Amino acid sequence: MSVKILKPAEEAYQFPLLIKQLLLSSERYAGDNEIVGGNNGRRYRYSEFIERVHRLADMLTNAGVKAGDVVAVLDWDTPRYLECFFAIPMIGAVLHTVNVRLPPEQIVYTMNHAEDKLVLAHDDFLPLLAKVQSDLTTVTGYIQLSDSATPPPAPLTTLGDYETLLAQALPEFDFPDFDERAVATVFYTTGTTGKPKGVYFTHRQLVLHTMSLAATMSINKDMQLMQASSVYMPITPMFHVHAWGVPYAATMLGVKQVYPGRYEPATLLKLLVTEKVTFSHCVPTILQMILSSEQAKAIDLSGWQVLIGGSALTAGLARAALARGIQIYTGYGMSETCPILSTTWMPLNAADLSEDEQVAVRIKTGCPVPLVNMRIIDERGRFLPHDGESMGEVVVRTPWLTQGYLHDPEQSDVLWENGWMHTGDVGTIDASYTLQIRDRIKDVIKTGGEWISSLDIENLISQHPAVELAAVVGLPDNEWGERPHALVTVRAGMAVDHAAIVSHMQRFVEQGLIEKWAIPDSVQVVDEIPRTSVGKIDKKVIRERLAK
Amino acid sequence: MSVKILKPAEEAYQFPLLIKQLLLSSERYAGDNEIVGGNNGRRYRYSEFIERVHRLADMLTNAGVKAGDVVAVLDWDTPRYLECFFAIPMIGAVLHTVNVRLPPEQIVYTMNHAEDKLVLAHDDFLPLLAKVQSDLTTVTGYIQLSDSATPPPAPLTTLGDYETLLAQALPEFDFPDFDERAVATVFYTTGTTGKPKGVYFTHRQLVLHTMSLAATMSINKDMQLMQASSVYMPITPMFHVHAWGVPYAATMLGVKQVYPGRYEPATLLKLLVTEKVTFSHCVPTILQMILSSEQAKAIDLSGWQVLIGGSALTAGLARAALARGIQIYTGYGMSETCPILSTTWMPLNAADLSEDEQVAVRIKTGCPVPLVNMRIIDERGRFLPHDGESMGEVVVRTPWLTQGYLHDPEQSDVLWENGWMHTGDVGTIDASYTLQIRDRIKDVIKTGGEWISSLDIENLISQHPAVELAAVVGLPDNEWGERPHALVTVRAGMAVDHAAIVSHMQRFVEQGLIEKWAIPDSVQVVDEIPRTSVGKIDKKVIRERLAK
Repeated sequence: MSVKILKPAEEAYQFPLLIKQLLLSSERYAGDNEIVGGNNGRRYRYSEFIERVHRLADMLTNAGVKAGDVVAVLDWDTPRYLECFFAIPMIGAVLHTVNVRLPPEQIVYTMNHAEDKLVLAHDDFLPLLAKVQSDLTTVTGYIQLSDSATPPPAPLTTLGDYETLLAQALPEFDFPDFDERAVATVFYTTGTTGKPKGVYFTHRQLVLHTMSLAATMSINKDMQLMQASSVYMPITPMFHVHAWGVPYAATMLGVKQVYPGRYEPATLLKLLVTEKVTFSHCVPTILQMILSSEQAKAIDLSGWQVLIGGSALTAGLARAALARGIQIYTGYGMSETCPILSTTWMPLNAADLSEDEQVAVRIKTGCPVPLVNMRIIDERGRFLPHDGESMGEVVVRTPWLTQGYLHDPEQSDVLWENGWMHTGDVGTIDASYTLQIRDRIKDVIKTGGEWISSLDIENLISQHPAVELAAVVGLPDNEWGERPHALVTVRAGMAVDHAAIVSHMQRFVEQGLIEKWAIPDSVQVVDEIPRTSVGKIDKKVIRERLAK
Repeated sequence: MSVKILKPAEEAYQFPLLIKQLLLSSERYAGDNEIVGGNNGRRYRYSEFIERVHRLADMLTNAGVKAGDVVAVLDWDTPRYLECFFAIPMIGAVLHTVNVRLPPEQIVYTMNHAEDKLVLAHDDFLPLLAKVQSDLTTVTGYIQLSDSATPPPAPLTTLGDYETLLAQALPEFDFPDFDERAVATVFYTTGTTGKPKGVYFTHRQLVLHTMSLAATMSINKDMQLMQASSVYMPITPMFHVHAWGVPYAATMLGVKQVYPGRYEPATLLKLLVTEKVTFSHCVPTILQMILSSEQAKAIDLSGWQVLIGGSALTAGLARAALARGIQIYTGYGMSETCPILSTTWMPLNAADLSEDEQVAVRIKTGCPVPLVNMRIIDERGRFLPHDGESMGEVVVRTPWLTQGYLHDPEQSDVLWENGWMHTGDVGTIDASYTLQIRDRIKDVIKTGGEWISSLDIENLISQHPAVELAAVVGLPDNEWGERPHALVTVRAGMAVDHAAIVSHMQRFVEQGLIEKWAIPDSVQVVDEIPRTSVGKIDKKVIRERLAK
């Protein structure tokens, strides 16, 4: 179709969407707000932070980094990591946020695969790098990141330590304009199949993701995550999908930010109190860990807003959080989606809702944020109705979807079809456009021609008083195609077996909550449920183990 | 520089930034919110509004409108105008928001110049169109917009009336994807020099402008213009820079909207009360008109948030508004900038400010919104410091600047240099990045090698108790280059002359507020200060008149 286009691309894109522009408003709005490091207690005003971003750009340039080069960072969550979030892409280079929780051989694999040139690494990771140095085929230099004022001797040759080099660099850097399609960041998904895959995002994508987050994090009076007066502390690693991209939004809006370093409950709780943190986001297990820690008992957590993502928020955890006064919400997304696709949207009458209704709203996977087009489809690709009951695969269109895996055009984890990205998640959407994820499409248990959500079964099993955690997988069955089987961990001092679970589940069958074929064929009590490196239940490993 | 670009443009832009995407979140967030028409009392839920947008698209297609065609709208502010804001660009056509306040010959000029094909016009404007019909060289059809349930006979042949055609159209339209550089809207600036100039904006520009507004209209606790619970009523005409683009943001966020039809104080005040309006924006004269109306005296205006733009907000009007409990703020921009560049940013300690300090913050032209890069430069193009004192021309970079005038590559009103747009405004920027516009560069009075802001002189003259309004212009002077001259209107029952103004101004000279060469050489008392069609003081006319 011939729309009216009056300007050639080079003029129409003369103000490209670049990460440097997210800094334009930061200092204006920040006032006296600071960016605080839980790692070493250092605090920076926004003007100082911005100067450090400029110095870092000069430092990187001095170290030989050029546009298009990949710079790796191995660090805990620190203000200096936030400086890397900006300075590295702002000079046209690519920030590789290395997943430091991967096994060493996978770290080496990802660093070689991304073609990392310069490496900025925390003292904690230098011994590893010293050991594998000869395997890193593209790296030409290392910079030491240290939390100590006097950095310890490094176990490998470096160009120096970050703070010393920063002090030597020039305080003003002239950040260039370039094509908004330039790759800004890369990181590796810890898919449960095959080797880690490089997911990458462009400047354009990160800017648009940031704008959309900022547009909706503050407009709901019952959910004002990001106010000018907010204090933001991520508890999702910065190496993992840029801590969900929220640091970019927080910086753009100039809010006070606290970076906790390593995630230890005592440190997190101390920072929560001393820095008056109002908003965090994390996976359920982290919140669980915090709530069940000894230190949390003596602390007033009321008013703390927590956005949960990464895996499903259970009603039980939501209730436990609300009981402590925590305002708990859910977000949904995945590595391939930058990541945020949807967040809780509190209805305008939220104050009138009962606790049960509050919980029901908060554990749903939320409303798609602006610019996200989300639908559910059946096996033949037809759009399903938004009735809260029809269960289909979630497909999305939005300007911030990864456009393939790095150096790996044969994508396998997600599928693009007709411009839609298939998430591999199965869910329902209701009349108010709220998504409820029910399962992964590969974890859905297909038994006797029906789909059963493995997560639904896990939730019901978990309501047994003796059960701490349940994992349910489908295993091949000659008669039914697949049948559900469960692993459970048991609360201290209690016991459970297959018969107990069957009778527990029988109750839900009688209540019409599930069909009787959803009751697992076997229940195995284990000490620990296998997990992936980011803490998710590893159903691939469970299936393999149970199949033996 | 060779940044890493892994995808060709056709793939990288496979999710183009199109106005249709602003609708994705509207219904999700809206709940039961409505879009209300003050013109005829009709109310639409968001789901109905979206269906009407689909029907309008089908109606336009039936009327022969194709991608790239220009569709003109002549209407007061109505929900149906908002439907046009979406449906017309969403089918790839161009929305021409005709300035109905222009003289007939200029309306004809703009409609021919824009090459309008289809015209949607309110009953009030059909007689004019009937009269000039033979002069409209590109128009092939008319659609009647009527506020009556049974539209009166039209004075020219039409394709029918809007509501009837809408009812006949299909309720679902498959909106296509196309290049985000497609022109979406065009309107004409009422520049004080030469013929009206067509300013146009693309889908990309309007989407980014909307995202930036949405990102900051709710994050300051002392200035929450757009909350999920807000009720928005524009009092800036929709034909004028898309009512500052705020309707796009309001729709994206699903807030309740009220469109007042014509601007009569009684109607506006009635809607304010009955619809519980929380946020409006307008030029100072409209607010002045409302505050001084008889009806306003009996109404509680407290809590109403009003963003002022278009011309300077005086301390006097700000005080009068605050005295009525109105939360008053300032925005800055121009037709060529989509328009918003900056808005008031309340400091975090706003509650502690005295009334004088409150007024000082609120009348400043605000902090640039995200993605706006703003500087002030001297005559040689050098950046001036942000010290609140250095006065220079305001230059901006942002993704939503018009990229030229329609069919008129020899732009003259604004100038692009080195990628910066020169606004023609002169201002200061302080350490907190707050802009204060001091004058238009062409109105600044250059006398004896000094620059004096004509607005500063006007403000001081206006403090004379007998002066209602003052306008100051520079006129050529053989000795000094230019000298200031004033026109004033006088309050009922009072009198003033040159000598009185000189002695009034002498006081400010003694206080060190101005130099003595800022005192006007002449003061002429007039019944009315000449104004442009959008209500601004017309200094061009004043200079011409005084030069005679």
